Amino acid sequence: MSEKHTEISQLGEFGLIDRLTAGLEAKNDSTAKAVGDDCAVLHYDADSDILVTTDMLLENVHFDLTYVPLRHLGYKAAVVNFSDVCAMNGTPRQITVSLGISSRFTVEHIEELYDGIRLACRAYGVDIVGGDTCASHQGLVISITCIGSAPKGTAVKRSGAHDTDLICVSGDLGAAYMGLQLLEREKVASAGQPDFVPDFSGKEYLVERQLKPEARKDIIEALAANGIKPTSMIDISDGLSSELMHICKESDCGCRVYEDRIPIDYQTAVMAEELNMNLVTAALNGGEDYELLFTVPLTDHEKINKIEGVKVIGYITKPELGAAMITRDGAEFPLRAQGWNPLAAEQKSDAE
Amino acid sequence: MSEKHTEISQLGEFGLIDRLTAGLEAKNDSTAKAVGDDCAVLHYDADSDILVTTDMLLENVHFDLTYVPLRHLGYKAAVVNFSDVCAMNGTPRQITVSLGISSRFTVEHIEELYDGIRLACRAYGVDIVGGDTCASHQGLVISITCIGSAPKGTAVKRSGAHDTDLICVSGDLGAAYMGLQLLEREKVASAGQPDFVPDFSGKEYLVERQLKPEARKDIIEALAANGIKPTSMIDISDGLSSELMHICKESDCGCRVYEDRIPIDYQTAVMAEELNMNLVTAALNGGEDYELLFTVPLTDHEKINKIEGVKVIGYITKPELGAAMITRDGAEFPLRAQGWNPLAAEQKSDAE
Repeated sequence: MSEKHTEISQLGEFGLIDRLTAGLEAKNDSTAKAVGDDCAVLHYDADSDILVTTDMLLENVHFDLTYVPLRHLGYKAAVVNFSDVCAMNGTPRQITVSLGISSRFTVEHIEELYDGIRLACRAYGVDIVGGDTCASHQGLVISITCIGSAPKGTAVKRSGAHDTDLICVSGDLGAAYMGLQLLEREKVASAGQPDFVPDFSGKEYLVERQLKPEARKDIIEALAANGIKPTSMIDISDGLSSELMHICKESDCGCRVYEDRIPIDYQTAVMAEELNMNLVTAALNGGEDYELLFTVPLTDHEKINKIEGVKVIGYITKPELGAAMITRDGAEFPLRAQGWNPLAAEQKSDAE
Repeated sequence: MSEKHTEISQLGEFGLIDRLTAGLEAKNDSTAKAVGDDCAVLHYDADSDILVTTDMLLENVHFDLTYVPLRHLGYKAAVVNFSDVCAMNGTPRQITVSLGISSRFTVEHIEELYDGIRLACRAYGVDIVGGDTCASHQGLVISITCIGSAPKGTAVKRSGAHDTDLICVSGDLGAAYMGLQLLEREKVASAGQPDFVPDFSGKEYLVERQLKPEARKDIIEALAANGIKPTSMIDISDGLSSELMHICKESDCGCRVYEDRIPIDYQTAVMAEELNMNLVTAALNGGEDYELLFTVPLTDHEKINKIEGVKVIGYITKPELGAAMITRDGAEFPLRAQGWNPLAAEQKSDAE
């Protein structure tokens, strides 16, 4: 963090907002009026689906500032929203950013956080069009809403999967979760040792997947370029298992996915071994991958194979067959959904 | 609060969301897909300005659950966003609702909160189209984003006021602030007395203004019906003085408002007397009125007089004249802006 410390009280609310938003430039024609009024004004043409999504992040619930740099936190807070827009087959366009800030943060801290948000916005061509900033007695609170668009009729919901559709997933799974385990382990090891240097050698990918996830806008573009409209789509934020259950529920169908088809990076496998964790469980339930899970008609099989970084992991079935994974030895293992549970904060750590 | 207590852990995240959103019906044609997917899909025609605003409310910063019923809190959290859309001369259409919830809240508590939000949405014809729900270690967090629309070209910013324009305000000012003083006083008086019954007789209006504010959608409709397009507009959330400064800054102008024209309710005056507070200071700096402050060309003078509940309180000047109030005895008193300051939480109480 920066050495310079300006108390937020010195700037006041308006001064802080001025400082945070200085030099912002609208990148989309649809951004008619951004920060600086009661509302942002957006001009969309008649041929668009407008997409809106929102995410709230709370300190010590969603992030731990002991090992998450504020810039990374800002980047991630924005990207998880972009990922939700991509999961509708859309393009993120604008975000609003609301922050609750406790008095232990300086202007520089909040600038670091905001820099991360702005970096993500530049990388994805998104405009910051508004927000709210307020005092918090309780640590940092981040709430971001994203508005996106898709050509009319091209938005993809969770509800359109049909029997025999192929189930596809982008990238690889479980790495962000393993990154979290690694960061937590180093945090414990560093306790009371101010000179402690964490050792991430050979595991950089895991740390990056946890601290700096990306939204798969590239996959959305590749799908369009190859003339593929998925029948259903969702991003993997709570784990493959949970997201598959969402698609099955919303589409009124069942599914079969093959254990040996689930894409897993080498570093993820090594880390699971090291921590004596079940690798497939981590990939199924770990969460925070922000990869895309989608279904396409069987007839798109060849088209899908052309897209780099997308893997077919199974197929959709009639609903009465339920949702299951077929293990390496051919057994069927029923999938379970996991959701947030306030009285089971250690749930994910226990997933293994 | 309800007698029945269901632990949120019993429902889990998805169960809670299902329960909260059961029976929601889209009221606007533009709501193509609401709760239940990664994004809400909104269809707007080519003739609209789309408006987006967001507000975050934190426990013990923006509200005190000792005297704010959860239903009222929900209502207010939604209405303050509607007010921002109205302040652009727009109509609120959709909201997303994000909640951070600590484990001391039961499902019933959150339902009460959400009932208030839904009540406000019904009253204003707004659809809930998404949100996020998560655990909080630190008390209740509410973040609402509102999307609204206005016919293309009719959205009103803070920046269009011109020299000689009339300054208008709806309703009356300072009552919400006096309501807060009253509630705080009764809270102190009730400390340690479980059987304490607060006495609000003759002051019901003040309590209602604090606990159940309304957005002035009726004024927006009356302006349209009378063929008036304000040159600038803002809602009064931080106090008349602060909002006038915003308009002057954004419009590059000065202003003169007359002390004796500022609309103040009888109950507000009585309460200020009782608390030995300066009445005009309360009206200028009290905040949370959610009335509309706007400017119209001098030529609209007769049209404005026809609108019930709107009062002309002054006029716009050239910027070099600054922003000032003309007191009852004809003296000029410069206006000051007030903003949020995290290290001066008692600021508003000290305003007097």
